[in-house]
Amino acid sequence: MNRAEIRKRILAENDECASRLKSGFDETGTLVVDIVSSPGAGKTSLLEETSRRLSQELGMGALVGDIATEMDAERLRSANLPAHQIVTGGACHLDARMVEEGLQHCAFLPVDLLFLENVGNLVCPASYALGEDFKVVLLSVTEGEDKPFKYPAIFSKAKVAVITKVDLLPQLSFDLERVEEQIRTLCRDVRILRVSAWSGEGMEEWCRLMQQEQARKRQTVGAN
Amino acid sequence: MNRAEIRKRILAENDECASRLKSGFDETGTLVVDIVSSPGAGKTSLLEETSRRLSQELGMGALVGDIATEMDAERLRSANLPAHQIVTGGACHLDARMVEEGLQHCAFLPVDLLFLENVGNLVCPASYALGEDFKVVLLSVTEGEDKPFKYPAIFSKAKVAVITKVDLLPQLSFDLERVEEQIRTLCRDVRILRVSAWSGEGMEEWCRLMQQEQARKRQTVGAN
Repeated sequence: MNRAEIRKRILAENDECASRLKSGFDETGTLVVDIVSSPGAGKTSLLEETSRRLSQELGMGALVGDIATEMDAERLRSANLPAHQIVTGGACHLDARMVEEGLQHCAFLPVDLLFLENVGNLVCPASYALGEDFKVVLLSVTEGEDKPFKYPAIFSKAKVAVITKVDLLPQLSFDLERVEEQIRTLCRDVRILRVSAWSGEGMEEWCRLMQQEQARKRQTVGAN
Repeated sequence: MNRAEIRKRILAENDECASRLKSGFDETGTLVVDIVSSPGAGKTSLLEETSRRLSQELGMGALVGDIATEMDAERLRSANLPAHQIVTGGACHLDARMVEEGLQHCAFLPVDLLFLENVGNLVCPASYALGEDFKVVLLSVTEGEDKPFKYPAIFSKAKVAVITKVDLLPQLSFDLERVEEQIRTLCRDVRILRVSAWSGEGMEEWCRLMQQEQARKRQTVGAN
């Protein structure tokens, strides 16, 4: 088997496992959101702030992937978001089997809204389905405005793109319109939000979107 | 063959190719520096500014890895740094074979100092030798101070760690000492620099280091 065949087999096995996960989440009406970004774009901060704003209204939880350390799960638990850390060892992305295994340690399930906080990486997480309803990609304004075209796979697949740390815009030369145009070129129907978890800008819109998507999921499940 | 065995074989093949590359670079006295960071930490900006400051004194060139686009090589060429773009397709890191192949397109060789600007990714580039003299890891102050312990492999292997975008420190809560302590825990002999390509802070120290390392390499080669 050459490398391309090996990769194809790995992804096929992953897709099979992801389908099983999706069926399970559909049965319990759990909206599952895979959060992807570079290291340090603000995934954990977004989830902390989401928990503070939404935990009265939605039952939430998180599975958090990192190469090493339990730091992110601890941060989320401190923000009252039940969380289980998946330590991937060398792996630069979550895969469906890691999620399947991680779920067995989540006493907080089932929930209305489950976040899968992926490993900080704009590349490989794009290729792995995890049973999610959709992927959200975060891009921090400090990362520079050329990123969507340089990492097209994840920006093509994400249903929602969140531009983070917008409170820092006055200190930077970052052309928001240019970036958003790139993102729309890669994915016509993407929803783009401008957010700062630190200042709170855009958080209400983000939380409302999560609520709407959760309500839609619940209806779909109710209809079956 | 299971996944661990496949990975072992891939890395062994890569090491073999990297050794060949290293011998070639040693023969021409070329100092080769592999630059690794998250997307948007400032690899290209650092190299642009290095070119502006050092190109009178050292013959330099760059091989630039990206999933997609020629944008970074174009930026470097505009800063008078001869550069060849390696478009990796799906691959989230450079490997030695890509470098070997890329070198054949570099009419600017041999040079005193060759930069290998890796794909924006803190994970997989740590595992792949490219024939370099050493790796340099960049960490932007906007990425948050937990990154070294969360991405330990690259911080353990890098000879130099460059904390970038320090001009933004007044706008952030970022504990420089804490980060540097983490980095030293992972690699006792690491050299840590604080740099802003934008304001110029730390650039002189960085350029001096590159000159010293190049002079040392030239001596070693002369001694053989």
